[in-house]
Amino acid sequence: MLSTMQDTPLLVSRILEHGRTVHHRSKVTTWTGEGEPRRRTFREIGDRASQLANALRDELGVTEQSVVGTLMWNNCEHLEAYLALPAMGAVLHTLNLRLPAGQLVWIVNHAADRVILVNGTLLPLLAPLLPRLESVEHLVVVGPGDLSLLDGHRPAVHAYEALLAGRPTTYDWPELDERDAAAMCYTSGTTGDPKGVVFSHRSVYLHSLQVNTTESMGLSSHDTSLPVVPMFHVNAWGLPHAAFMSGINLLMPDRFLQPGPLAEMIESERPTHAAAVPTIWQGLLAELTAKPRDVSSMRQVTIGGSACPPALMKAFDEQLGVRLCHAWGMTETSPLGTVAQSPAGVSGEEEWAYRITQGRFPASVEPRLIGPDGSVMPWDGRSAGELEVRGPWIAAAYYGGAGKEPLRPEDKFSPDGWLRTGDVGVISDDGYLTLTDRAKDVIKSGGEWISSVELENELMAHPDVVEAAVVAVPDERWGERPLATVVLREGATADYRDLLAFLRDRIARWQVPERWAIVPAVPKTSVGKFDKKVIRKAYADGELDVTTL
Amino acid sequence: MLSTMQDTPLLVSRILEHGRTVHHRSKVTTWTGEGEPRRRTFREIGDRASQLANALRDELGVTEQSVVGTLMWNNCEHLEAYLALPAMGAVLHTLNLRLPAGQLVWIVNHAADRVILVNGTLLPLLAPLLPRLESVEHLVVVGPGDLSLLDGHRPAVHAYEALLAGRPTTYDWPELDERDAAAMCYTSGTTGDPKGVVFSHRSVYLHSLQVNTTESMGLSSHDTSLPVVPMFHVNAWGLPHAAFMSGINLLMPDRFLQPGPLAEMIESERPTHAAAVPTIWQGLLAELTAKPRDVSSMRQVTIGGSACPPALMKAFDEQLGVRLCHAWGMTETSPLGTVAQSPAGVSGEEEWAYRITQGRFPASVEPRLIGPDGSVMPWDGRSAGELEVRGPWIAAAYYGGAGKEPLRPEDKFSPDGWLRTGDVGVISDDGYLTLTDRAKDVIKSGGEWISSVELENELMAHPDVVEAAVVAVPDERWGERPLATVVLREGATADYRDLLAFLRDRIARWQVPERWAIVPAVPKTSVGKFDKKVIRKAYADGELDVTTL
Repeated sequence: MLSTMQDTPLLVSRILEHGRTVHHRSKVTTWTGEGEPRRRTFREIGDRASQLANALRDELGVTEQSVVGTLMWNNCEHLEAYLALPAMGAVLHTLNLRLPAGQLVWIVNHAADRVILVNGTLLPLLAPLLPRLESVEHLVVVGPGDLSLLDGHRPAVHAYEALLAGRPTTYDWPELDERDAAAMCYTSGTTGDPKGVVFSHRSVYLHSLQVNTTESMGLSSHDTSLPVVPMFHVNAWGLPHAAFMSGINLLMPDRFLQPGPLAEMIESERPTHAAAVPTIWQGLLAELTAKPRDVSSMRQVTIGGSACPPALMKAFDEQLGVRLCHAWGMTETSPLGTVAQSPAGVSGEEEWAYRITQGRFPASVEPRLIGPDGSVMPWDGRSAGELEVRGPWIAAAYYGGAGKEPLRPEDKFSPDGWLRTGDVGVISDDGYLTLTDRAKDVIKSGGEWISSVELENELMAHPDVVEAAVVAVPDERWGERPLATVVLREGATADYRDLLAFLRDRIARWQVPERWAIVPAVPKTSVGKFDKKVIRKAYADGELDVTTL
Repeated sequence: MLSTMQDTPLLVSRILEHGRTVHHRSKVTTWTGEGEPRRRTFREIGDRASQLANALRDELGVTEQSVVGTLMWNNCEHLEAYLALPAMGAVLHTLNLRLPAGQLVWIVNHAADRVILVNGTLLPLLAPLLPRLESVEHLVVVGPGDLSLLDGHRPAVHAYEALLAGRPTTYDWPELDERDAAAMCYTSGTTGDPKGVVFSHRSVYLHSLQVNTTESMGLSSHDTSLPVVPMFHVNAWGLPHAAFMSGINLLMPDRFLQPGPLAEMIESERPTHAAAVPTIWQGLLAELTAKPRDVSSMRQVTIGGSACPPALMKAFDEQLGVRLCHAWGMTETSPLGTVAQSPAGVSGEEEWAYRITQGRFPASVEPRLIGPDGSVMPWDGRSAGELEVRGPWIAAAYYGGAGKEPLRPEDKFSPDGWLRTGDVGVISDDGYLTLTDRAKDVIKSGGEWISSVELENELMAHPDVVEAAVVAVPDERWGERPLATVVLREGATADYRDLLAFLRDRIARWQVPERWAIVPAVPKTSVGKFDKKVIRKAYADGELDVTTL
């Protein structure tokens, strides 16, 4: 039996028109450093998004499915692009301004961006790349910038405000298929080319509904949210579209992401919510300790990107009365995967045990753990496996490029279509995820998995250990075994046997490494993470002085 | 460009499995009158739903798209059916036990229910109808009841608990199309046959997400909700599926809907939320005034079905500290249409002006007002029109019957597919709906509309008027004009001219009725509403003593 329901598609244009009308009084405040912030209502944002769509179509020839890049900070104009581009049927392609130049060039060419909207302050970054950008016909410069940097380059240059001026504030948004592309974002793995995830109108719409449920962020038009997490990376965790759907006021930090300006804008604009990675909060805490500000307006802060040290969470609780709430996700998950709201009926240490997990899955993100032997592991809080997820806002493939088939690398997607997250963890019987390692770093020893991160944490608990990195090395009998590389503090007296004995008291005997190397420093990646590839190569090349116990 | 997102369908089976696992500790408590309530966890409910699905398939031959009726109160077994039937691909058909026998028979035959799940306490209602139920092959009796009432009737009789006992607690739920039928519910208009609305998995899933957003009901696993509004009518406002999606504990009143038991269960089980029509709250307030109980656990109450008297809302606020929140919807809208959460930045009388509206539209319910001349009216809080809505959980048609085309009566659906709600109202510039009349009762006078309800309210404000009903009557010059029928209090001294003068002070002159009749009583429908059909007929038949001024 077919239902008798309307077959109304889930489209970004509906979010735009809803926010512009029902929530027309909600505000977007963009920080400008010095002077008065730029303040716009949702009605103004909606009107300007319509003007932008008209301008892009009539002046720049942007059509349905044209890819338009944005190289922009979090500001009201970026929100206008977030709404206008998908609504008119074009594809919003957010460009991560932190990527190496070569990757940015590769990404723009692969997505075949016809137009790039760029903040004037980012022209020094973009201009040198222009000779290598093959598809870009137009640049739209948003805000002040040194336009002379663009002299002699091929793309036509437009000023954003001049382009919008006098255009109609309405647009006859097309009735798209909800599975059409709305936006895309490239994720840069540590190996191989960047990979493009193409979000649909359907996935954006459903994700926005979920963000607005009480179990996720639960914000409404009574809130003001400060998305520190960039709109050029994993969609600012879905906040821009979720905000326009339910009238959440936004405080946009633009390029002022240092602790000082953040503290200042929180004190002066009084947001109730913010979202950022742990390092931002670490910096803010230090700033507020050195120079106290009133941040009492914030009742909840969503924190993700990497695990937050529990000490930092407790410091925010106790010193500032602000609740940091873990969330986990990735570009491939739109990104909302889990949120660590506490379950009912717990408090004290029991509640902390939940708060330091990555969080609980919503109904639309179905998880499974694939164990060492390829079987699905139980949710018992102990049995580790690689996390795979399925759901309507989870990627099934990567963009293959214009006219090409999507890419489904088998290390990223299971044969039955689930996303392989590359994260190893456990799930509690009530659906809370705790990540313990990256799949590529876990040590596969005799059909069991040993978490490199857990070994490192235990080793670093030893008073003489400054840093420890554990990697898998080949082993004839067990397949793989852990190699512990350790940096000792100056004047340390501990030797291998002491560390071995220390570990034996704390972890299962079969997990304790036999191979040890004391090193002067752990090699790091450009973003400061342990570079385990380098350690594995050094071991393979015989460049490490390894002691086997 | 196609997105690279997974094409995971939105299915009730996902809601079931999610609630059973992630929210397994959440509880459903069913009131039993005397003695201990029946308490089940979501895990038990999920397990039993699977057992029910196995039993229905293996014993009763229920297949995908079989229609299964439920004639049940709000209780945990009804929730099991709410989950199991759609998840297995069958269609949950909730039967309204308050309907006249003839309508119930018509509905069961039209939907071709193969099986009916019936509470034992409702057998006296069902048994006499059995000879006329053509399609019903099996009855499943839930809870104790007088089975002898079923002797000699054709359907096979099964006891619910015996049917479930020993069945597997898992079921390999089919991967359905999200547009397949999940549930159906008939709406009984005042004219013509009842009309069946067929909800899809997609509409149920999206509606559940919306219910759980902060701007709608905003409940989570920290809440316990008491749905007094029946599951046999407009899906208990979506709470059963929304609850399993986000772990909201449920307190089920079963058949104990009188003020006394309700007060008792609220005091003893401490729900944080409840949902019911105004008459329930009127009764509860009287009960609590006569015999105080502790209802301090309730922080919010959703109220719908008809407009709530502001005095009742204020009494709950002031006497009980419980916030009554208006919602509007109908079977054809799943039913969530609007919810009257206050906007940001208002308080006092300004906030009350919002709270007494029907509420604000969410993004997925797009409204328009069609005015007297067929044009779309502005959202200015003054321009009245018939409310039409569009969205993914709004009906596009009615069920035509097995093998027949859906019905799209033109008084119910516009040519471009919007639902005609039959309600007349205004929308404020920030999307709050105020209903002023039923479209069939509004008086269409010379290209303008006069609200019969507004005239009645003004007339009833006169100290001598007990009741007043205003209907449209044909008028040669204006098309239609209002006829005021008035019931005066005993010993009243007012005459027509006094009432006329009273109205002229309060409403626009052109809206004041010329035709008047003093009547001993206003005729009422079976549910106590003014029966305006009867008045119109009496006028047409010359049976009213009408004075024209």
